[in-house]
Amino acid sequence: MRAVDLIEKKKQGLEHTKEEIDFLIENYMNGIIEDYQMSAWLMAVCFRGLTDRETAYLTQSFINSGDVLDFSSISPNIADKHSTGGVGDKVTLVLIPILASLNVYSAKLSGRGLGFTGGTIDKLESIPNFKVELTNEEFFSQIKNIKAAISSQSPNLTPADGKIYALRDVTATVDNKSLICASVVSKKIASGATSIVLDVKYGSGAFIKTPSEAYELGNLMIKTGKLLNKNIDVVISSMEQPLGTHIGNALEVIEAIEFLKGNYQKDLYEITFELAYKTLLNCKIVSSKDSAKEMFDRVIKDGSALKKFREIIKAQGADDRVIDDYSLLNIAKNKLEIKSSTNGYITELNALKTAHSAKLLGAGRDKKTDKIDYGAGIILKKKTGDYVEKNETIMELYYNNTNQSRLNEAKQIALSSFKLDNKKPENYSLIYN
Amino acid sequence: MRAVDLIEKKKQGLEHTKEEIDFLIENYMNGIIEDYQMSAWLMAVCFRGLTDRETAYLTQSFINSGDVLDFSSISPNIADKHSTGGVGDKVTLVLIPILASLNVYSAKLSGRGLGFTGGTIDKLESIPNFKVELTNEEFFSQIKNIKAAISSQSPNLTPADGKIYALRDVTATVDNKSLICASVVSKKIASGATSIVLDVKYGSGAFIKTPSEAYELGNLMIKTGKLLNKNIDVVISSMEQPLGTHIGNALEVIEAIEFLKGNYQKDLYEITFELAYKTLLNCKIVSSKDSAKEMFDRVIKDGSALKKFREIIKAQGADDRVIDDYSLLNIAKNKLEIKSSTNGYITELNALKTAHSAKLLGAGRDKKTDKIDYGAGIILKKKTGDYVEKNETIMELYYNNTNQSRLNEAKQIALSSFKLDNKKPENYSLIYN
Repeated sequence: MRAVDLIEKKKQGLEHTKEEIDFLIENYMNGIIEDYQMSAWLMAVCFRGLTDRETAYLTQSFINSGDVLDFSSISPNIADKHSTGGVGDKVTLVLIPILASLNVYSAKLSGRGLGFTGGTIDKLESIPNFKVELTNEEFFSQIKNIKAAISSQSPNLTPADGKIYALRDVTATVDNKSLICASVVSKKIASGATSIVLDVKYGSGAFIKTPSEAYELGNLMIKTGKLLNKNIDVVISSMEQPLGTHIGNALEVIEAIEFLKGNYQKDLYEITFELAYKTLLNCKIVSSKDSAKEMFDRVIKDGSALKKFREIIKAQGADDRVIDDYSLLNIAKNKLEIKSSTNGYITELNALKTAHSAKLLGAGRDKKTDKIDYGAGIILKKKTGDYVEKNETIMELYYNNTNQSRLNEAKQIALSSFKLDNKKPENYSLIYN
Repeated sequence: MRAVDLIEKKKQGLEHTKEEIDFLIENYMNGIIEDYQMSAWLMAVCFRGLTDRETAYLTQSFINSGDVLDFSSISPNIADKHSTGGVGDKVTLVLIPILASLNVYSAKLSGRGLGFTGGTIDKLESIPNFKVELTNEEFFSQIKNIKAAISSQSPNLTPADGKIYALRDVTATVDNKSLICASVVSKKIASGATSIVLDVKYGSGAFIKTPSEAYELGNLMIKTGKLLNKNIDVVISSMEQPLGTHIGNALEVIEAIEFLKGNYQKDLYEITFELAYKTLLNCKIVSSKDSAKEMFDRVIKDGSALKKFREIIKAQGADDRVIDDYSLLNIAKNKLEIKSSTNGYITELNALKTAHSAKLLGAGRDKKTDKIDYGAGIILKKKTGDYVEKNETIMELYYNNTNQSRLNEAKQIALSSFKLDNKKPENYSLIYN
């Protein structure tokens, strides 16, 4: 077998065997196949696609390239949730305590954020002293003790995906659904999850732009799960406007805590519940949506989910008084209010633009080495469909860096992020069925 | 400008500007753009193609990457001919002496052969002591003195094409007509030619399989010439069966000398004349095919073309007695005759298979470092359309290496290279109009 022949085969649109996919990945990892051959193959895949079978082979090959965690001695059901990424997405911070308080184990490996706003790990790091780099032993024992742990990703999981993702990023070969599917699903399976629920987002604030593309990707992920004997379910959701009201790391922690205290935005509730419901179904803890809803609401109402979040914060070395005292989170000192220049309904609140504005305020990074200002970000006072009076505040910008040109740019982008109209817009549908 | 954005642009099928093409090639040559980005771009080009304009930009960019030879102090017209490669193609050895004897200057830079049989340089090296590596001074003064010189390629011409060709070879991105065109045309222009005639071959023994593909490529080459202000013309010819009767380096030299003595095969005459005619037209030496034919035939008949070949051989350090004494060429000692097992017409004589057989006899190389047996090869006693009696010899295999398994394989492939039938096949059309 030669790499050049496999590239030619895919170029011609033919289907690879499992042996061929394994040959490509194994030899890429041991350096026999060069970056330039892999990138040519990836580009051919972008044009020709991979079949469902090939996608499953690739996923398995990614898994085989590194360690595979195994929590079966702790629980037969290890849940994991993954979002393809959105603006203001603090779902993990809310969902994991809820699931743990319902006796569902979560072994959550998360990443940092690139692009506009921080990832789950960045958000947790905004809690002073929260330890995100757990050793294997710490991770296992915490899961055993309190049913949930969140750690930054171990470098030994799916190294082939890591190496290939880095290559895709610089060769314009990111946007193929099979490559995306293999990347996401392999990581979840390698991290020991047996029940995986994926939140596939589309819209202005997501890298997938249309619901039908999101649906196709979601479907492929479900099929890949079936072919690899894992329970995978998918929620397709809109990312036209930010999720919830808070954007930025420490601000999102506050919104998550408020959620667990019972003060939540409708959209954040809706998506979190949907993901919880599918996880509970997957783990055979519930068989109906009604009973899932009853359980979900109960652990919020009785405080057990909040208690669980407190346990996680304590277990990972941080001060759990943060739950009652948000001043410990060091929200940025300066506030700039973005006001409406007229009366009207908000017909659009562009997720990408608010994220871009939040990044300029300090909430995100351009390069891996950039430092995040955890306290910076945006609080939305209004969302799509809301009516605003002239001079009413639509959003508040929080920042420490007073560089005027940067701040001005953030303000301009924030101002351009929403549209007003006399006519009330149609109801915004978050979950796509 | 970023490489990844240009890859994405081509992936989406958009047209590059001249600046973008130059950016890609210049930065690839100086190491800022990596092999893996170039190969991804090349694969995107294979799927999306390049426009005529982009092809001309790429050709110019290849030319700009290295030295450009200039013979304008010797003659305003410097002819060059290039073949996309075929089996038994000794046209250069015949054409250049003919053109030189008609006062057309040729500055011929040729390559060695990879694949099945040797290139022009290998063929000339089969003449003992023929010096193929001329210094710039030797090359220039020989052209000035006797109107023709043939040298192996200088490494300083179109280095970008060299680097990219090596990459295409291992990434299954060879077979795109714009990339082929830019590679061929840039090299010809950089080597100082002002009048270029290209022999684009199709068929079993060529890398282009159909006449329409050859026609498309030829057309593109003509357009590229126009966009770059060079006279380029094209001959499309079939390479279903080998050209002439002799395959293998020294054997082809003998056939070339015989041609110049007036003993030629119809097909070799036909293609050589067509290329000469178009060159003479290009150089404005003739305006009609008839006058070209008169001149062509005259310099063969009066011996001036043969005399010119003698001059070239002497000028490049070899013994010109080879023209009268073929024993100086050291043809291989052993001969094996391939005979017909039945009566019938030859309906097919597969160029690729005869070439493969000749390579096994020692006439070609697999790797750049392989040694060629210049004396090995095949003489065809019959060609497509010929009638053969049972037990009549169809071809003769010449070899020095008596390794039996290799020899047996060469014999089997030779036996499989032709087909016989009771019905006379339709006339074989060499030149495609």
